[in-house]
Amino acid sequence: MRNLFHETLDSLTADLAGMCGRASELMQTASAALLSGDLSGADRVAADLKDLTTLGHAVHERAYGLLALQAPVAHDLRVVVSALYIAADADRMGALASHVARAARRRHPDPPVPAEVHDLFADMAVTAVDLADLVRSTVESGSPERARLVCEGDARMNDLHRELFARLIEPRWQHGAAAAADLVLVGRYYERFADHAVEIARRVYFQVTGEQLSGGGDTAGG
Amino acid sequence: MRNLFHETLDSLTADLAGMCGRASELMQTASAALLSGDLSGADRVAADLKDLTTLGHAVHERAYGLLALQAPVAHDLRVVVSALYIAADADRMGALASHVARAARRRHPDPPVPAEVHDLFADMAVTAVDLADLVRSTVESGSPERARLVCEGDARMNDLHRELFARLIEPRWQHGAAAAADLVLVGRYYERFADHAVEIARRVYFQVTGEQLSGGGDTAGG
Repeated sequence: MRNLFHETLDSLTADLAGMCGRASELMQTASAALLSGDLSGADRVAADLKDLTTLGHAVHERAYGLLALQAPVAHDLRVVVSALYIAADADRMGALASHVARAARRRHPDPPVPAEVHDLFADMAVTAVDLADLVRSTVESGSPERARLVCEGDARMNDLHRELFARLIEPRWQHGAAAAADLVLVGRYYERFADHAVEIARRVYFQVTGEQLSGGGDTAGG
Repeated sequence: MRNLFHETLDSLTADLAGMCGRASELMQTASAALLSGDLSGADRVAADLKDLTTLGHAVHERAYGLLALQAPVAHDLRVVVSALYIAADADRMGALASHVARAARRRHPDPPVPAEVHDLFADMAVTAVDLADLVRSTVESGSPERARLVCEGDARMNDLHRELFARLIEPRWQHGAAAAADLVLVGRYYERFADHAVEIARRVYFQVTGEQLSGGGDTAGG
């Protein structure tokens, strides 16, 4: 039988999915600014990030309230504690998107991304937004298959990040150390964005199956 | 009156402080490898990181057990939930130290850090290790003054990171885009290490005072 407690859990899950959806939108807007050099969207990202953070605080307070007032155990406790972590990861995804937007602004009026690596950043942007959408539907559905797809998307992001690094350090790189330093950081933001999506997917997977999902995660540098 | 529950909380706090201490040691070892180019220490970091992660899992399980079996409320609940976050932050600090060690190895047999920025990385290393030690004693003591000092140390780290970026993008930078790209990432690892120390300090501060500690946190890029 569903009771008030479980209805609150359901709405918590809906809010977590909503946070992932907002992180996706933030990354979409930030990436469009980065790839086009049009800053009108970049300026919106900071305000939208505040909304995401506010939602995160609300989720945190609600999860906290459930722990304090309902003292859940077993599976229910796992869901509530997971919610605390998932909210933090989704909030961090939003922060990383805002870093991408700030990088776009920092490089203005130069085109933020030179032609030689434009395709790579376009791929990273699509991969990041797809991952955030996929993790939103993973949270919503609790589907272990989708959680596994998030890990696959992260593997693709790691490949793109390695390829970026390789291109930036080629002798024929013509845009100097400043652009390389900037762009490697932006690449790192995308990579970490994907890592946090994986963290969320892993938590959902564990919640549903009781087993650990292998693969994914932070690969240093390069 | 102290009871078994509070004894478990005390040992949880001791373990969290221990995790911060280990993160400090990891960063000390990784930084020595980075600054000297001697890789013998760098190889130890991966193994030591596993110990830290294992300790983190143990803390997580214990905190979880307290939630499930004791259903703490009010201040006690805050302490237990904070422990979950602090363990995750300290574990991440260790991971970032291991990234520094891997960067030292990746640049081998070149000296990992060219002379022009050696002083900066030496300062970042000292600042990072001091911050981790300070946050260890903040966790141990619950001192709001120490928590504030952690934020000050983080501000210093942000200054160093900005200065690093400025030097890497100077026209007289002679080591090319590859070294710049590598080193800006290493700088980012130090900066994020400090950010996680701040996160821990903020949680302790809130736990003790009921107020938010302002200042500190992630500053994008540059």
